[in-house]
Amino acid sequence: MSGLVDALVGIVGEEGCLHRPEDLFVYECDGLTLHAATPAAVVLPRSSDEVCAVVKACRREGVPFVPRGAGTGLSGGATADEGAVVIECSRMNRILEVNAADRYAVVEPGVVNADLSKAVAPHGLFYAPDPSSQHACTIGGNVAENSGGPHTLKYGTTTNHVLALELVLPDGERVKLGSPTGWADGYDLVGAVVGSEGTLGIVTRATVRLEPLPERVETLLAIFPDVVTACRAVGGVIESGLVPAALEILDRRTIAAVEASVYAAGLPEDAGAVLIVELDGPAVALPREVERVREIAGREGADRVEVARDEEERQRFWRARKGAFGAMGRLAPDLYVHDAVVPRTRLPEVLERVCAIADRYELKLSNVFHAGDGNLHPNISFDRRDEDERDRVIAAGREILETCVEAGGVITGEHGIGTEKRDYMGLLFDETDLDAMRFLRSAFNPEGVCNPGKILPTTRFCVESDPKARGYDRVPLDE
Amino acid sequence: MSGLVDALVGIVGEEGCLHRPEDLFVYECDGLTLHAATPAAVVLPRSSDEVCAVVKACRREGVPFVPRGAGTGLSGGATADEGAVVIECSRMNRILEVNAADRYAVVEPGVVNADLSKAVAPHGLFYAPDPSSQHACTIGGNVAENSGGPHTLKYGTTTNHVLALELVLPDGERVKLGSPTGWADGYDLVGAVVGSEGTLGIVTRATVRLEPLPERVETLLAIFPDVVTACRAVGGVIESGLVPAALEILDRRTIAAVEASVYAAGLPEDAGAVLIVELDGPAVALPREVERVREIAGREGADRVEVARDEEERQRFWRARKGAFGAMGRLAPDLYVHDAVVPRTRLPEVLERVCAIADRYELKLSNVFHAGDGNLHPNISFDRRDEDERDRVIAAGREILETCVEAGGVITGEHGIGTEKRDYMGLLFDETDLDAMRFLRSAFNPEGVCNPGKILPTTRFCVESDPKARGYDRVPLDE
Repeated sequence: MSGLVDALVGIVGEEGCLHRPEDLFVYECDGLTLHAATPAAVVLPRSSDEVCAVVKACRREGVPFVPRGAGTGLSGGATADEGAVVIECSRMNRILEVNAADRYAVVEPGVVNADLSKAVAPHGLFYAPDPSSQHACTIGGNVAENSGGPHTLKYGTTTNHVLALELVLPDGERVKLGSPTGWADGYDLVGAVVGSEGTLGIVTRATVRLEPLPERVETLLAIFPDVVTACRAVGGVIESGLVPAALEILDRRTIAAVEASVYAAGLPEDAGAVLIVELDGPAVALPREVERVREIAGREGADRVEVARDEEERQRFWRARKGAFGAMGRLAPDLYVHDAVVPRTRLPEVLERVCAIADRYELKLSNVFHAGDGNLHPNISFDRRDEDERDRVIAAGREILETCVEAGGVITGEHGIGTEKRDYMGLLFDETDLDAMRFLRSAFNPEGVCNPGKILPTTRFCVESDPKARGYDRVPLDE
Repeated sequence: MSGLVDALVGIVGEEGCLHRPEDLFVYECDGLTLHAATPAAVVLPRSSDEVCAVVKACRREGVPFVPRGAGTGLSGGATADEGAVVIECSRMNRILEVNAADRYAVVEPGVVNADLSKAVAPHGLFYAPDPSSQHACTIGGNVAENSGGPHTLKYGTTTNHVLALELVLPDGERVKLGSPTGWADGYDLVGAVVGSEGTLGIVTRATVRLEPLPERVETLLAIFPDVVTACRAVGGVIESGLVPAALEILDRRTIAAVEASVYAAGLPEDAGAVLIVELDGPAVALPREVERVREIAGREGADRVEVARDEEERQRFWRARKGAFGAMGRLAPDLYVHDAVVPRTRLPEVLERVCAIADRYELKLSNVFHAGDGNLHPNISFDRRDEDERDRVIAAGREILETCVEAGGVITGEHGIGTEKRDYMGLLFDETDLDAMRFLRSAFNPEGVCNPGKILPTTRFCVESDPKARGYDRVPLDE
């Protein structure tokens, strides 16, 4: 390994290569603290050329590597097992081009999500995907995880906003995928790479779509007696044919945590749930949509509906939502942020079942979620030093996922499979389905050296030519 | 082959297997008449099970196969080389489920595009991708080609509307990809399959997103002195921040052909070009948007702007647009419909150059295109029996594509690469980029038996395990 460290220092400089235990500590996990491991080294390249050189150096030494953005992921996707090198792209943080007329920007992977929208705002544009971690997370990480956010309901996830990518393959070669026009000639490899959690290569440049800022935004806060009633109102809004920009729910425990934190937003602490509804579009159309939402919320049992009077009040509502995960730090040392999706119409029953599971395991559950998408985040506050509690957290987690799959849902919406859920993939897919994913991974990453151990259950395959069968065979890989 | 025909008849019945020369004639090409070849047989399965059985029978006999929808493609993607079996899905045409509350439908691949929107209209919903051939083309073909249409500008192409797929792999196994919630856990194989032109397998079921019908639609027809001026108006509309549902241009020769045909719509035959602008959204917002477009068109040099007074007039405008390709049948026996995309801002200069190329080759060019997307359709009317003209058509076609690529564009927007453009892929991609596509194809279709000879330039590869390299090697395949 010391030979590799020397080689890495030769590529990225002394200050670009961390290898002392005290420097590596912060890289032992991402936002999923249930799974921790210390990498052998962390390199911080400054260019796509340096990424290629780092990958080739790792390959020469037979050392696996793990791409990493800001480490805000929640499924262990950026966690490196012992012995692997982390390639962190935070120093590649330049916005290389903003083309306002054709509505795209070309960025390096380390650009912070919120910084991009700030940079293009003078052109009347914004970058739509807005994960709650947008002030820290990077575009490269967003591409790897196909990140969503509260505005996914109207605007889609990252995959709907990536036009082209430059990708360093696991052998250190560089390819360009897609085009700034947004049309992917040949196979849509951009589509395959977005959401592949860093297992097909390392994104070193992204061309992303920019959207015109809506003429007007209206944000409502509806107070409900409980979370199930709030979910019914979400169904009512969708059925009405409205397409809000966001439909977000916070439950009672989340409200309490937020109100006790620096994100306090004056939410009524006696409320069972609040629903944030954001509408955007032509100024002249919004007053009627606001009235429509108010009417539906009232009909479905809202105690009260407030409309943000100005941008400051609007920001206050959103501060509560986007600060919710941070605020939960008050409840316990660790937080397991779950992520699953169910058909919107199944939300009320699924939430009731999820609450019952947490009660049965005597766990502290809070819910803050993208209700409009059916994207649940049941969050369990716990202390990982308490082994018994930890076991209950894991057992309850599995039951929650099974419940969502039974309801016609999937096991992750926006956080990825990572290490957290790879062994639950069998809940959704049979072996033939999983083989199809293995084909794809093996095509790009045949030896599994690029972000090993993520996404797919631990039985591994490699691709071999076999004219008699589909062309693959089971060969264990020595990752 | 007669053994295979017997086996196929055993699977799909006598009426489901065409093998006499007179029955095969209609399958000698799709909408690209430049390239024709007669398949060995055509099978018309009625179920996904039958598709699996047909694929396995072909594999046993070592015969390649070509999936086909309605054969309305324009790049030769559904044309079978001699000796191949066409698997045509038109008898699998059931809408299996409409879930209005969760806004999706599950369909068989042979459902005709326009029939789906008609079937879901009573729920206040529609299926957004609307290729001009929508009254004939099928959802399965749309998935294979990632079809667009006039409303791509606002609503995106097929890939933005497919939630889940059932796919029969080239070895006859069946996989399910994606989920009706629209979240693709693990690798986004739905994204990889959409637009793969039938080379990764045969889609036997698709779950597609449905959109709420807009409350109101306004359709404008702006008359311009020439096509370049019309393009400038398109730029003006986009710059204003409006997001119209469609921005379509027809040039003078197209107008003349349409007006002489059954699609005649009363377009002014002395106009140099017409621009159709469709706006949709909340009723209260549209009058101001209509005025805005009228003002921009006037400023950019429109002679006149008409607004459709009712649905009948609106349908008349669209009849001209959607009937344009059919109408061109009046100009010459054959039509070569080109398809390329350039950044919207480069449209005026690229159109001038495209016209100059056609003039230089003394060819009859007409233009009807998705201007809002920068998606050009320079159409050349010709007679394929005239060899000299045919050579000029091909030479001009290449120059047109080179011009578009030079302007930062790509070589197909919505018609696919097929056989037509596979040897032009090198204009856009270097060998490393193309290798990445070969990895993907080989992962699913290692022997190239499923729709051979499409998309990729004719040098072929197969994937082999090689721990020293990226894991592939060049091996010629005996397709």
